[in-house]
Amino acid sequence: MSERRSYTARDPEFAARVAASFGCQGVMALLGARLTRIEPGLCEIQLPYRPELSQQHGYFHAGVTSTIADSAGGYAGFTLFAADSSVLTVEFKINLLAPADGDLLIATGRVIRAGRTLTVCELEVEVEKEGRRSACAHGLQTLIAVADRPDRPA
Amino acid sequence: MSERRSYTARDPEFAARVAASFGCQGVMALLGARLTRIEPGLCEIQLPYRPELSQQHGYFHAGVTSTIADSAGGYAGFTLFAADSSVLTVEFKINLLAPADGDLLIATGRVIRAGRTLTVCELEVEVEKEGRRSACAHGLQTLIAVADRPDRPA
Amino acid sequence: MSERRSYTARDPEFAARVAASFGCQGVMALLGARLTRIEPGLCEIQLPYRPELSQQHGYFHAGVTSTIADSAGGYAGFTLFAADSSVLTVEFKINLLAPADGDLLIATGRVIRAGRTLTVCELEVEVEKEGRRSACAHGLQTLIAVADRPDRPA
Amino acid sequence: MSERRSYTARDPEFAARVAASFGCQGVMALLGARLTRIEPGLCEIQLPYRPELSQQHGYFHAGVTSTIADSAGGYAGFTLFAADSSVLTVEFKINLLAPADGDLLIATGRVIRAGRTLTVCELEVEVEKEGRRSACAHGLQTLIAVADRPDRPA
Repeated sequence: MSERRSYTARDPEFAARVAASFGCQGVMALLGARLTRIEPGLCEIQLPYRPELSQQHGYFHAGVTSTIADSAGGYAGFTLFAADSSVLTVEFKINLLAPADGDLLIATGRVIRAGRTLTVCELEVEVEKEGRRSACAHGLQTLIAVADRPDRPA
Repeated sequence: MSERRSYTARDPEFAARVAASFGCQGVMALLGARLTRIEPGLCEIQLPYRPELSQQHGYFHAGVTSTIADSAGGYAGFTLFAADSSVLTVEFKINLLAPADGDLLIATGRVIRAGRTLTVCELEVEVEKEGRRSACAHGLQTLIAVADRPDRPA
Repeated sequence: MSERRSYTARDPEFAARVAASFGCQGVMALLGARLTRIEPGLCEIQLPYRPELSQQHGYFHAGVTSTIADSAGGYAGFTLFAADSSVLTVEFKINLLAPADGDLLIATGRVIRAGRTLTVCELEVEVEKEGRRSACAHGLQTLIAVADRPDRPA
Repeated sequence: MSERRSYTARDPEFAARVAASFGCQGVMALLGARLTRIEPGLCEIQLPYRPELSQQHGYFHAGVTSTIADSAGGYAGFTLFAADSSVLTVEFKINLLAPADGDLLIATGRVIRAGRTLTVCELEVEVEKEGRRSACAHGLQTLIAVADRPDRPA
């Protein structure tokens, strides 16, 4: 993006709300992903490598990369939603720029358009190998805010 | 697609080659995915529900849906590749048509354009609930064939 | 798509409503595009070749292909909307499967998911050369229905 | 993108090569688009409003927005290619962030990954209204370099 916009969360408890929702995503625990940064309009998720996360060449599987990118974008958008609403991914597109060959994946979602119904996020994933980070995926995602619906099952 | 094209695999061992590669994807075992159908230009992967695969509302996570859709498309393309080549996902886009609420996900990848370098696949995911299947995701994927490179680590 | 779904338009005047909106799209006249088929959940647009529509090799420009594909999808969705609503494209993705080398482009949009707010369409474009049609582009599009807003300027 | 990378063109005549190719795109003249900026890995195209470029509400048509975004990305990539190669769009995805309501469209393509075969670009489109610019579209595009093929018809 040309410039980074700054956003204000209307729910002051946005960080706790995101953390609670993240804790309800079974797949984040299964993969071993951690919520490492949460700000209005931004979310970062990290995932250390394990052979269980691989595709056939031993790199992180594109689907794993996509899974944490999708959650990072979803929670970036969710920081800006009303407290009683819920977030769903409408669609996303991701380019795998390079093999995700490394020890750690870092996915960052950033809101680039916050609308009443639809929110659009940019997704970036870097891979860290021997202390050096490089871009491995870049995506674009559309989210929908579902009003008056708690984000977690009762 | 208007009509389904039929393809011929140039490597008669394509099914064994796909199965061997699938067996090397650590994440397929971690999720519990099964390779259930393999034909020239087509691959189907099934994944039974477990709470470990969920997003915050308890449905299959969009990233999990995307992961098996990505592998189904990748292997659909791989059936048509030369024996000594390898497959990588260039990019994919997926629309989550409905919450993936059910007991079983069924992802099908179908080649819609087989090129020398690039192959394009259509991705469809259905969810089965109480014996009834319905569409839950639809995607489009670009693959690249990497020549003279074995698909698995030595 | 596995099977083609059939849809019912809630507005019996859907065909006239689409034709009137199409007539208001200045760019369709500029390109020379014609609305050739309109059914509930489906729209076809044809565009004869002219050098003014070309990219640098003389084929139809990918943007021209995308323009009629976008309108075909938008109107496919619009056939199913309420009479007093309006349609906007949220996003689309298109794969250019082969150079659009021929005398005529035929773009078809088909609804694959009709929701209250969001509608998803599959986009297919064929090119006809010396009487023979072949696929040249395939896409996926998300539309939003804007309620209580006439589709055309007063 | 987190940081803007800087690129070096291997063909010192890249700007003349892009301008010549742009001049061969019939559709750029038909729309009235102008090549306004060309640097290694970057291209900007501007398009003043005319009613002939409109969708049904009078705004720039999403396809028109996409057309100049596609060319801006294509030429951003082309600046980095070898002199005797050609560029084709493999696919692109674009989010229409807001109605393109204004007097001028400005599309910028930026290379975010330059590979031997495939190049990935980020596409941004702004609309200017009464002297003020705002984002109206954001996209992601994959290009392929076709070696040993002149970019223009003989």
